[in-house]
Amino acid sequence: MNIVDIILKKKNGEALSKEEIEYVINGFVNGDIEDYQISALLMAICIKGMTDTETFYLTEAMINSGEILDLSSIDGVKVDKHSTGGVGDKTTLIVLPLVAACGVNVAKMSGRGLGNTGGTIDKLESIKGFNVNLSNDEFINQVKNIGISLCSSNKNLAIADKKIYAIRDVTATVDSIPLIASSIMSKKLASGCNKIVIDVKVGNGAFMKTMEEATKLSKLLISIGNYFNREVMCVLSNMNEPLGNAVGNSLEVLEAIDTLKGNGPDDLTKLSLALASYMVFLSKNITIDEAMKMVSDKLIDGSAYKKFEEMVNVQQGDLNSIEISNNKIEVLSKETGFITSIDTNRIGELSKFLGAGREKVSDTIDHTVGMIIHKKVGDIVNVDMPLVTIYYNKEVYEIEKEVLKCFEFNTFKKDKEPLIYKIIK
Amino acid sequence: MNIVDIILKKKNGEALSKEEIEYVINGFVNGDIEDYQISALLMAICIKGMTDTETFYLTEAMINSGEILDLSSIDGVKVDKHSTGGVGDKTTLIVLPLVAACGVNVAKMSGRGLGNTGGTIDKLESIKGFNVNLSNDEFINQVKNIGISLCSSNKNLAIADKKIYAIRDVTATVDSIPLIASSIMSKKLASGCNKIVIDVKVGNGAFMKTMEEATKLSKLLISIGNYFNREVMCVLSNMNEPLGNAVGNSLEVLEAIDTLKGNGPDDLTKLSLALASYMVFLSKNITIDEAMKMVSDKLIDGSAYKKFEEMVNVQQGDLNSIEISNNKIEVLSKETGFITSIDTNRIGELSKFLGAGREKVSDTIDHTVGMIIHKKVGDIVNVDMPLVTIYYNKEVYEIEKEVLKCFEFNTFKKDKEPLIYKIIK
Repeated sequence: MNIVDIILKKKNGEALSKEEIEYVINGFVNGDIEDYQISALLMAICIKGMTDTETFYLTEAMINSGEILDLSSIDGVKVDKHSTGGVGDKTTLIVLPLVAACGVNVAKMSGRGLGNTGGTIDKLESIKGFNVNLSNDEFINQVKNIGISLCSSNKNLAIADKKIYAIRDVTATVDSIPLIASSIMSKKLASGCNKIVIDVKVGNGAFMKTMEEATKLSKLLISIGNYFNREVMCVLSNMNEPLGNAVGNSLEVLEAIDTLKGNGPDDLTKLSLALASYMVFLSKNITIDEAMKMVSDKLIDGSAYKKFEEMVNVQQGDLNSIEISNNKIEVLSKETGFITSIDTNRIGELSKFLGAGREKVSDTIDHTVGMIIHKKVGDIVNVDMPLVTIYYNKEVYEIEKEVLKCFEFNTFKKDKEPLIYKIIK
Repeated sequence: MNIVDIILKKKNGEALSKEEIEYVINGFVNGDIEDYQISALLMAICIKGMTDTETFYLTEAMINSGEILDLSSIDGVKVDKHSTGGVGDKTTLIVLPLVAACGVNVAKMSGRGLGNTGGTIDKLESIKGFNVNLSNDEFINQVKNIGISLCSSNKNLAIADKKIYAIRDVTATVDSIPLIASSIMSKKLASGCNKIVIDVKVGNGAFMKTMEEATKLSKLLISIGNYFNREVMCVLSNMNEPLGNAVGNSLEVLEAIDTLKGNGPDDLTKLSLALASYMVFLSKNITIDEAMKMVSDKLIDGSAYKKFEEMVNVQQGDLNSIEISNNKIEVLSKETGFITSIDTNRIGELSKFLGAGREKVSDTIDHTVGMIIHKKVGDIVNVDMPLVTIYYNKEVYEIEKEVLKCFEFNTFKKDKEPLIYKIIK
């Protein structure tokens, strides 16, 4: 086999065989295939696509490129969740304790964020002392002991995916549904869970801008799951405005805690309950309505919050340590009217400029900065009403003006879009 | 400007601006843009194409990436030729002396071959002592003195083209008409001639397999020439069989000498006369018929051969030194019938295995090996008639059998295809 012939085949729009895909992935990981060859192939894949079968083979080759976590020593179903990423998305912090409180084992490895806002691991590090680096044994034992474990991804899982993603990020080859799906699923499948709920974000703050794309991605994620005998459900949720009000690491953790205590914003609470319910539904022999009732009860009776506290304690975090910057700017509306849209991606980008996210892998995150979005789509606003509070430590050029530009107003109220568009399974 | 945005733009099928193309080429040459970024962009160009205007800008940026030869100190028109490459193509050795014998200055820089058979420079090195490495001054002065100069390409011309070609060769991004055209023209234009005749080979031994592709390439080559105020003519010629009978470096030089002495194979003689005539036609204020007459006269009266001898002498070559291997195999036909096709590319490949060409840039060429193809398409052959003589120094596995496989026979004679399909200007 020869890499140039394989690239040519894909360039001509032909499907690659299992052997060819394995040859590419193994060759790239062991250094026989060069970065510039992989990038040419990735571009051909982006433009010419991949069949579902090719995507299964790619996922498989990426899983086999690294360690595969064996969770079989944990009794029963192990459930995981994933989000394709959005602004203000702190659902993991709420959903995992909700599910664990229902008696379902949740074992989740998360990433750091590269991009606008921190990843779950960055958010957790707002809690001083919280140990995000668990060994495989620690990770597994914690699930056995308290039913919940949330730590940083094992670097040895799906090694090919990491190497490939580093190239995709700098060669404009990120936006390919088969590449996105195989990347997500190789990591999820290598980390050993049986059931997976994926929150596929759709909208101006998400990677999938349209329902069509999001639906395509969801179907492929589910097919990949099925190929590996895993049950996968996708929840297509609205990312045309930040989720909840808080954007930024400490701010988001505090909002997650409020939500677990029953005082969270409506959209964040609803989506978290829904995701948790689907996870419980997949894991227990009950109806979705029963799962929803069970999950709601665990929120109301405080047991989900207790589970969260328990996890933080076991992982040595101090919940009294979460800090927010003392430097605040209140951004006041210059207009009167209903908010018709929020440029969510831009809100994320501005948060990154404040220090809440990373431009490069080597950047350090300032956990204490971010924004509270007081008004959302459909809300009525008068001149001089507070729209956003900015928490900062360094000056960002014309930040107030830039934040204001993210909001569009109209004298007529726009129908609010649904929070959850669709469930695909 | 940002390379990822530029790649994305091309991936989406949009045209790049002059500034963007300059940014890419300069960034790649100075190392700011990585190999894996260029290869992703090249793949997007291969699949999505480039407008003519983009191709002009690309050619311009590649010309400006290196030295530009100034031939203005040579009086009158300076004419150049180029061939897109084929098997047994030794026309340069015949055409240049023919044109110079007509009193037209020919200044040509040539390459070494990477691929099946040697390039013109490799062929010339079959002549012991022949100095292929002329300085710019030596190159120019020789044209001033004897009207002809043929040497190895100045390494400082079109530096970007060399760097890009090295990547294209290993990423399956060679076959793109805009990339091929800009590569050819950047080198030709940087080497300073006013008029250029390009022999665009079409057929199973050429890069362009169909008339459609060859026509597209020709039109683009001419448009690029016009953009830079150069007159370019394309001669679309048959490469469905080797040109002439000789394939391999020394063998080809000897055949070129025979041809200059009036004893060459019919097809090689005709194509060489045609190419020389178009070069003379472009350079003098005469009709094409007058040019053809003048060129034929220079062949018949021996002045073209004298010009060749003069060039070889000035460049210190010894025409008595050309060696051919003593190891020969006569390949005899196993069939009776008319030859209907010859797998020309495979003949080239087998010659490479004998040592006449290069697999890698670092390979050395054996000038003494190759093949004489005794029978061509349309010829009638009986069992045991000699088809091919192989000259070798090392064993090539089942070479006779492989050579025989290149020939197809039929009891009916196939109409011979034209040698020259079309002239485009």
